[in-house]
Amino acid sequence: MAGEFDLIQWIRQQQQRASLLLELGIGDDLAALRWPADDLLLVGVDQVLDGVHFDSAVHSPEQIGAKAVNRNLSDCAAMGCLPAAALAAVALPVGFTIEKSRQLYLGMRQAADAFDCAIVGGDTATWEGKLAVSVTILGRAAGLRPVTRGGARVGDGIYVTGPLGGSILGRHISFTPRVVLGRQLATIASAMIDLSDGLSRDLRHICQESRVGAIIEAAHVPIHADAITLSRQGGRSPLEHALHDGEDYELLYTTAEPASNGTRIGQITAEPDVWLVQSDGTRRLLEPKGWEHRVG
Amino acid sequence: MAGEFDLIQWIRQQQQRASLLLELGIGDDLAALRWPADDLLLVGVDQVLDGVHFDSAVHSPEQIGAKAVNRNLSDCAAMGCLPAAALAAVALPVGFTIEKSRQLYLGMRQAADAFDCAIVGGDTATWEGKLAVSVTILGRAAGLRPVTRGGARVGDGIYVTGPLGGSILGRHISFTPRVVLGRQLATIASAMIDLSDGLSRDLRHICQESRVGAIIEAAHVPIHADAITLSRQGGRSPLEHALHDGEDYELLYTTAEPASNGTRIGQITAEPDVWLVQSDGTRRLLEPKGWEHRVG
Repeated sequence: MAGEFDLIQWIRQQQQRASLLLELGIGDDLAALRWPADDLLLVGVDQVLDGVHFDSAVHSPEQIGAKAVNRNLSDCAAMGCLPAAALAAVALPVGFTIEKSRQLYLGMRQAADAFDCAIVGGDTATWEGKLAVSVTILGRAAGLRPVTRGGARVGDGIYVTGPLGGSILGRHISFTPRVVLGRQLATIASAMIDLSDGLSRDLRHICQESRVGAIIEAAHVPIHADAITLSRQGGRSPLEHALHDGEDYELLYTTAEPASNGTRIGQITAEPDVWLVQSDGTRRLLEPKGWEHRVG
Repeated sequence: MAGEFDLIQWIRQQQQRASLLLELGIGDDLAALRWPADDLLLVGVDQVLDGVHFDSAVHSPEQIGAKAVNRNLSDCAAMGCLPAAALAAVALPVGFTIEKSRQLYLGMRQAADAFDCAIVGGDTATWEGKLAVSVTILGRAAGLRPVTRGGARVGDGIYVTGPLGGSILGRHISFTPRVVLGRQLATIASAMIDLSDGLSRDLRHICQESRVGAIIEAAHVPIHADAITLSRQGGRSPLEHALHDGEDYELLYTTAEPASNGTRIGQITAEPDVWLVQSDGTRRLLEPKGWEHRVG
């Protein structure tokens, strides 16, 4: 890429505020961080791909950059940790301008800044392919035990932090990751996950890791207005959208304590299946359908 | 992707040997590491893209996976740090089989295992795009100050650790990252970088970061047999290939001490330009051409 080094120079100039952890920033083979002693390091990577997680014909570079970072911040929320630093690998299509690349970076930067997360490194290359953005996140436990998917206990209540379904209408690209809420919930949650694959699939992850089952009460699942709108357009019910759509980026958690955040939608059981109980008392197995959440 | 969760299950089963650092492995929103107290954390990301860094019609999934990891291990070598953990984001083309995905993982795994580097997390998605693999590396300073690009001093000798040029003939996909050598050199090198963009370009990085210049003696630049082979096929001289081809993944470093590793090819100067001195004593500016090292 002709202007790749120019772009990196420009990005370096944007780094007004360095992370307290940062010993060596962008411009070397690797960045270097002074990790706080005895602070557990949480780390993960998540990518957004054109035609799957965004549509480059519809969404702006800022939106795409923000989503790439926010998906990772949502993983921090799900573990109850504090975001500390991020890195980005960006595969740019031939013809993607420097101006668009800057907008992409600014989208990432604004999303990261909102939670005091420094962007400390990256890689940019141009190819005869579509836009792909992969973001790595580093988080700090900072005094709280990370909340895993494996801690749910029989009898725990199951909660979600907001209404679900129909995120494809726009929320999937412009959500606020529940970092602050995740931190609060970390003190009471026995298990937690962010709702990216859809309630039915993400609940299954918790049940499998915790070796438990669950009963969900259909009438208690909070349904987003977008799910109702989508239902009018297609053949599926609002509840089906809420159960399976995905990319809500709310938190799903379990706890034995009476929780003040979110809506109680069910209970953890010893029997390993996941059941959906209708308001008339009948029940059926809740299959982990999960949608491919393709937006392209 | 239909088999994505199956693939992740399979990858988890492969993790016979956990990193000593690893508190929480694959299977949660994030992995968790116990980072050694007072050990500087080095972190970076580097991607390999179909048609740029490999050709999926020519190279096997194992080779592609290995290169994705080895490029990052080479960054560790360039900083003189110890690889500690890696994460991978993989964008799979529709139709890329589970078997190929496993081979890709095994290629990554073998490359990482060679340097006791655990693969602690990742993300997999399928798209209507080409194969892209982004690897994040975490390294430990482990008692040695990281070697930056910015430490070269006037009068330092300039060294390379092996012969250069013509890597496109095959070495670019199957190199051994100079991790062990980089660790040894960290005690004497004032500046260091791995040769990925080509000598002329990577030396320029050192000079810019160190605010110095350099004189390279053409007759001392070690030329790889592949550069001679390529020269016979095309119009450029073996020296031109050695200066500009890139993807050698040898180390380029500067030091004031008499060095035992590699070949001395020149000296750091105060004047900010980079000159190439021919054997007849004439000199010309060494332009940072750098090739786009496209292999597709």
